[in-house]
Amino acid sequence: MDKKRLEISDLGEFGLIDRIATNFDLKNRSSIKGIGDDAAVIDVGDDYLLVSTDVLVEGIHFDLAYTPLHHLGYKAVSVNVSDIAAMNGKTEQITVSIALSNRFSVDAVDALYEGIKAACDSFTVDLVGGDTTSSRAGLMISITAIGRIKKDKVAYRSGAKPNDIICVTGDLGGSFLGLQILEREKEVYLSNPEMQPEIEKYEYMVGRLLKTEARTDIVSDLADAGVVPTAMIDISDGLASELFHISKASNVGIHIFEDKIPIDHQTYDAAIEFKLDPITCALNGGEDYELLFTIAQADYEKLKNHADIHMIGYTNDKPTEKIMVSKQGTVVPLRAQGWNHFNG
Amino acid sequence: MDKKRLEISDLGEFGLIDRIATNFDLKNRSSIKGIGDDAAVIDVGDDYLLVSTDVLVEGIHFDLAYTPLHHLGYKAVSVNVSDIAAMNGKTEQITVSIALSNRFSVDAVDALYEGIKAACDSFTVDLVGGDTTSSRAGLMISITAIGRIKKDKVAYRSGAKPNDIICVTGDLGGSFLGLQILEREKEVYLSNPEMQPEIEKYEYMVGRLLKTEARTDIVSDLADAGVVPTAMIDISDGLASELFHISKASNVGIHIFEDKIPIDHQTYDAAIEFKLDPITCALNGGEDYELLFTIAQADYEKLKNHADIHMIGYTNDKPTEKIMVSKQGTVVPLRAQGWNHFNG
Repeated sequence: MDKKRLEISDLGEFGLIDRIATNFDLKNRSSIKGIGDDAAVIDVGDDYLLVSTDVLVEGIHFDLAYTPLHHLGYKAVSVNVSDIAAMNGKTEQITVSIALSNRFSVDAVDALYEGIKAACDSFTVDLVGGDTTSSRAGLMISITAIGRIKKDKVAYRSGAKPNDIICVTGDLGGSFLGLQILEREKEVYLSNPEMQPEIEKYEYMVGRLLKTEARTDIVSDLADAGVVPTAMIDISDGLASELFHISKASNVGIHIFEDKIPIDHQTYDAAIEFKLDPITCALNGGEDYELLFTIAQADYEKLKNHADIHMIGYTNDKPTEKIMVSKQGTVVPLRAQGWNHFNG
Repeated sequence: MDKKRLEISDLGEFGLIDRIATNFDLKNRSSIKGIGDDAAVIDVGDDYLLVSTDVLVEGIHFDLAYTPLHHLGYKAVSVNVSDIAAMNGKTEQITVSIALSNRFSVDAVDALYEGIKAACDSFTVDLVGGDTTSSRAGLMISITAIGRIKKDKVAYRSGAKPNDIICVTGDLGGSFLGLQILEREKEVYLSNPEMQPEIEKYEYMVGRLLKTEARTDIVSDLADAGVVPTAMIDISDGLASELFHISKASNVGIHIFEDKIPIDHQTYDAAIEFKLDPITCALNGGEDYELLFTIAQADYEKLKNHADIHMIGYTNDKPTEKIMVSKQGTVVPLRAQGWNHFNG
């Protein structure tokens, strides 16, 4: 009798993480928060230490046909700094491990680490360790970021209360369109190597994908404004997917307005050109690395004039209700269709 | 004019790390020690936090033809706990990131994490985070370990003084022989799949390779004896290579005695069977994960009766002199021929 083997794609990434997490409990007093947020939380006295780790794999997370190694290095650091920012913390140290095949020269390693150094300088982060090894094929980068936050300032995914205001920074969907543009240019190039790539007019979206900037400026602005978000997460998989995480962790419903979702006009135009719905790109396109957070209504006045923080809706006490009110006034249920590398 | 491109194998792993490290300085006050020891050191008030990271890549660091996933998971944790032990610290948290192809089922992931959990239980370590992603080929495991040590108890590679006593724990060369045995059995199996593997009589060496145990017991014993090593490192690449690291970091010479180097009789017999010199296996075979440390002569009495700590020589004030006195009384210069995965 055949029993079909259980594939990882049957569970998906989040299902797999849940399956792993259920078997592990926390035994050390210093372990405050384990799996299930943007970073782990460790008690070190006055402060909490925040630890986050991310792996980028060639052919899965990046394509070296159109990703300069310098940018890749910068981005690998930035996405980890973003995870620490999503806890309202400041990254102070990173470790960087790389595995790479003999296809790569020392020049290639130099270019990668130039990008890593540029990010370390930009975010005032110290590279304190790592590992370098060979691989049989391709390049893999694993970064662990270590940050800090005063204990009363930490922001988990789980702290949102009903009737909090949902805020998002910057604009969304740009990275997703940047990827579509680069994939199209790659196809053109592969079919005719004499063709010159046409990416100048798409510079904004391509930059959103390749030159990821963690929103550490927002963490500073929140501190200056005296606001601690009730919940926070960074947008790596898409706005809808992250809203689902906050809803689940905080046990609140989500009520957002389509016309409040920030989309840059260049992203909008490119979506139309690609015959894509701009709002779907903003909701489900990944890798924007903006911050999504909730604040108490009492903090509304402190942030309402911030040029780059957009209030897109509110939470409610019906955790099963996750909806968007369209421009036409109709109610659309949100669906979490984040990037799933296991189905990719 | 052709300029030969610089290959990573031209530099070697340590050369590559040196090249990277020179470009990075430490900017945050909390960063005490960066690249160049078994773990990074971060100031968190009363204690130092220790951070170490290691990557294991299929086909480079392990062969799943003879490495059960359960053991692999255990070992991946153990080698990181060993790095923290080498700073005289205790690991409290780990993050585990894996990248794996669709060749692996959920059952395989379960087996891997069972081993990880067994190690977490054995060393009282909490799994607090990580990342799971797909790869195009093979399995990669990246673990970061976070440990602690009181500030006045930390042991760097750089603290040895001339005339300190050089100590090594356990016995050496076993893992290297274990690898030879498994590689031989794999060849036999590939040439005739009906042959049964013959590994019962080699159980000790195979266990040394596959069931790595970090020597956290030694760290406890040192604390109980009131001894802080002047320098310490774990033996991952081979005794000679690690002695070179201590010599370079501490600016001391090395003087060891062949007849003091601990080799188990089963390792010895297996080396002879493979027509290998047992001492060369002990000096240059990797993956034993024993501790190598130096102590002040004043601490000799406190450790001289420890059954599993072997005093193999002493340091001197001539950093260029790294020698072994053979059983015949001749002086042999030591050579650091650690496992270099980039040449592998």
